[in-house]
Amino acid sequence: MTADNTPNNTQDNTPHNTPYKTLTKEALQAQLDALSEEYARIAAKDLKLNMARGKPAPEQLDLSEPLLDVLSSKTDAALLRKKQADDLRNYGGLTGTPEARALMAAIMDVAPAETIVCDNSSLSVMYDTVARAKTHGIAGQTPWAQLGEPVKFLCPAPGYDRHFALTAHFGIEMILVPTSAEGPDMDFVEQQVNNDASIKGIWCVPKYANPTGVTYSEQTVERFAQLKPAAKDFRLYWDNAYAVHDLTEPGDSLASIKTACEKAGNSDLWYMFASTSKITFAGAGISALASSPKNIAEISEQLALRTIGSDKLNQLRHVLFLKDLDGVRAHMKKHAAIVAPKFTAFLEMLDEGLGDLDIGEWTRPKGGYFISFDGLPNTAKRVVQLAKEAGLTLTDAGATYPYGNDPIDANIRIAPTYPSLDELKEAGKLFVLCVKMASLEVLLREA
Amino acid sequence: MTADNTPNNTQDNTPHNTPYKTLTKEALQAQLDALSEEYARIAAKDLKLNMARGKPAPEQLDLSEPLLDVLSSKTDAALLRKKQADDLRNYGGLTGTPEARALMAAIMDVAPAETIVCDNSSLSVMYDTVARAKTHGIAGQTPWAQLGEPVKFLCPAPGYDRHFALTAHFGIEMILVPTSAEGPDMDFVEQQVNNDASIKGIWCVPKYANPTGVTYSEQTVERFAQLKPAAKDFRLYWDNAYAVHDLTEPGDSLASIKTACEKAGNSDLWYMFASTSKITFAGAGISALASSPKNIAEISEQLALRTIGSDKLNQLRHVLFLKDLDGVRAHMKKHAAIVAPKFTAFLEMLDEGLGDLDIGEWTRPKGGYFISFDGLPNTAKRVVQLAKEAGLTLTDAGATYPYGNDPIDANIRIAPTYPSLDELKEAGKLFVLCVKMASLEVLLREA
Repeated sequence: MTADNTPNNTQDNTPHNTPYKTLTKEALQAQLDALSEEYARIAAKDLKLNMARGKPAPEQLDLSEPLLDVLSSKTDAALLRKKQADDLRNYGGLTGTPEARALMAAIMDVAPAETIVCDNSSLSVMYDTVARAKTHGIAGQTPWAQLGEPVKFLCPAPGYDRHFALTAHFGIEMILVPTSAEGPDMDFVEQQVNNDASIKGIWCVPKYANPTGVTYSEQTVERFAQLKPAAKDFRLYWDNAYAVHDLTEPGDSLASIKTACEKAGNSDLWYMFASTSKITFAGAGISALASSPKNIAEISEQLALRTIGSDKLNQLRHVLFLKDLDGVRAHMKKHAAIVAPKFTAFLEMLDEGLGDLDIGEWTRPKGGYFISFDGLPNTAKRVVQLAKEAGLTLTDAGATYPYGNDPIDANIRIAPTYPSLDELKEAGKLFVLCVKMASLEVLLREA
Repeated sequence: MTADNTPNNTQDNTPHNTPYKTLTKEALQAQLDALSEEYARIAAKDLKLNMARGKPAPEQLDLSEPLLDVLSSKTDAALLRKKQADDLRNYGGLTGTPEARALMAAIMDVAPAETIVCDNSSLSVMYDTVARAKTHGIAGQTPWAQLGEPVKFLCPAPGYDRHFALTAHFGIEMILVPTSAEGPDMDFVEQQVNNDASIKGIWCVPKYANPTGVTYSEQTVERFAQLKPAAKDFRLYWDNAYAVHDLTEPGDSLASIKTACEKAGNSDLWYMFASTSKITFAGAGISALASSPKNIAEISEQLALRTIGSDKLNQLRHVLFLKDLDGVRAHMKKHAAIVAPKFTAFLEMLDEGLGDLDIGEWTRPKGGYFISFDGLPNTAKRVVQLAKEAGLTLTDAGATYPYGNDPIDANIRIAPTYPSLDELKEAGKLFVLCVKMASLEVLLREA
């Protein structure tokens, strides 16, 4: 497209809030021409905006600066256990310090004895859990690498791209599970899990799901707990990444999968994952794995071959800084004060810019890190491309689906946390523009 | 045995420095009776001594207290890169910060671009390297889990028990390689590696080997580099755990496996591992993996599925505290000042207590964490048992061999670092006593 400096050289008298689908081909073209000019002007600004990843903003990281001070050479020797056999500076502590286990257990709503504290990155913990199943198996079942047929995982989508990437990496077949505001389609999940022994797991982000922001309903959690899997080594891979990441007061409340599984006589069905990556420092947090005592015993035994223990000083830092669940909640309110206005601003721009056009829907999450946008079919890739070429990097279209393949090419994950509020407004304006243009292009092709 | 309070109730007029093998059965028995009484007196003291693991002493950990202070909320924002896209507090940095890579590369005598910095525990890095080979393969070769026949590793022994344990955990067959003061028996290694495609690796601790303290000779390193493996995915698993851990001045010098491999046209043959566990805090250090740029590229690509990055703030702490190789060497001299006297004291007790008896040999390492003791055949388990029952925990006999099986039951790993000098003298006295008793028992059975 050429940057024509003559503004409004295309006649366009259609009111700008008319639903696109009601427009004539000529009116669609006129709108597209006008928007293309606006796009050219924005593209010329050479913007460098990035909303690709769910990354905390620098101001959020600043909230955890005290984490850098809680431990020093002046710290009480008793806290560091300098004179004890379990000196935190020395080897040991395979499952984490008791205090760190208690802290992470509180965040995950489980018991400390059900919790193993690990190093930075819950993604690693999930990867390792799948890797161990592949090489050593779960609960005495055949290691997946030794099975004649491929293992399958259910993948509620839109979902977390890194779950899907690691699943594909291990050669696990991914089955797309449709989702609604209640969570995954449980009729489909039950039908699959209860009848197919090659299905070994399902990826769930049960609270403020990535990217929809949906929190599973109580009924969904109960139906998960009541599954009667054909595979004895089927597990729920419950990625509780946003357990305490409320943006509103009150936030969503998530039923306890642990309690539900125990009630259903399915105590060993769940693996839960969490981290402080989006609580303290994304680059220097602690993570955790939780499960039934039986599963934890099995995992600990395997883990002992891999390490003598995770970083216990960083565990102590987190305990001294966050203290307990009340401390975590107070801290998360400070995050919300920074993040919520960004969500609000972006949602307002979507409402204002797209509200009447009938070319997209979007979620209004009460927490988490993402807004999920669904445009017209066959527009998502084009929107991301248009945005990219004008200086706004979005998550790749399709990334929220298994194999990077959104069957209708409609979903885009929006990550509003990292940019400043000003950048976000600029990004929102550009995003709205790109959605309009891509929609007009599709409607024009179909007209 | 009963605690008889009458001292010297057994007649024993044999000089105490007579080689045991020259004694009559009666003299052996008399010695054993006398020593048994001494043993009973020591056992009654209810000692709690532990020399099982290569664990730094609290005084060694104290040396790294400044590591707790180098980073604080007052640290220059530029050092933390707070205003940059690669803010160390945020996500990112898959292979480590450039500064941390440079530091670990200097310790490992390789280039920063050949180095990936990871979290606490090089054991994890080694485990993960084997795990990836099992599930995904190396350099395009078939993943080991998919091979029809079992994979084999060569295991120079006596060696590091955790190497052997993780190898067995992955169902890899272990082949014992005899060792000498030059390192592994290279005739045997060449014959095996160059002819058997199922041999995929060899565990090497090339400097101050665990437990012998041997540093591989230049010729050994060169012969490793010149291997012509039958398996394209054969690699040297070069655990450079004690690269800078000298106890004497000068310490041993290790030829560069990297340079030797490059010269031999075998650039991709080596994987190297190291950590700061025995430099700073064993419970909160950083670790690293090094290899050829081609191997590092392959590993990085796989690693990206597992993590977004390791703890970058702890990397920064280590860079600020240790600075560079000179800083590391100066710091290690402080360790040596604490550790070397413990080695000397224990060796003196061995010399004095066992020097003339011809019932054992032991190494005199110039660095590292262990003394390797070889007693008479069929005595090691008994020594460890006797020591244990009298309150001294040693590494399990056999642990230094694949499958925990020392074919002649003679080797014991001695870890002198953790106990205080006083405790060590007590432990040394008890150890000497147990060796004498176990030897007398064996000689009596054979007499």
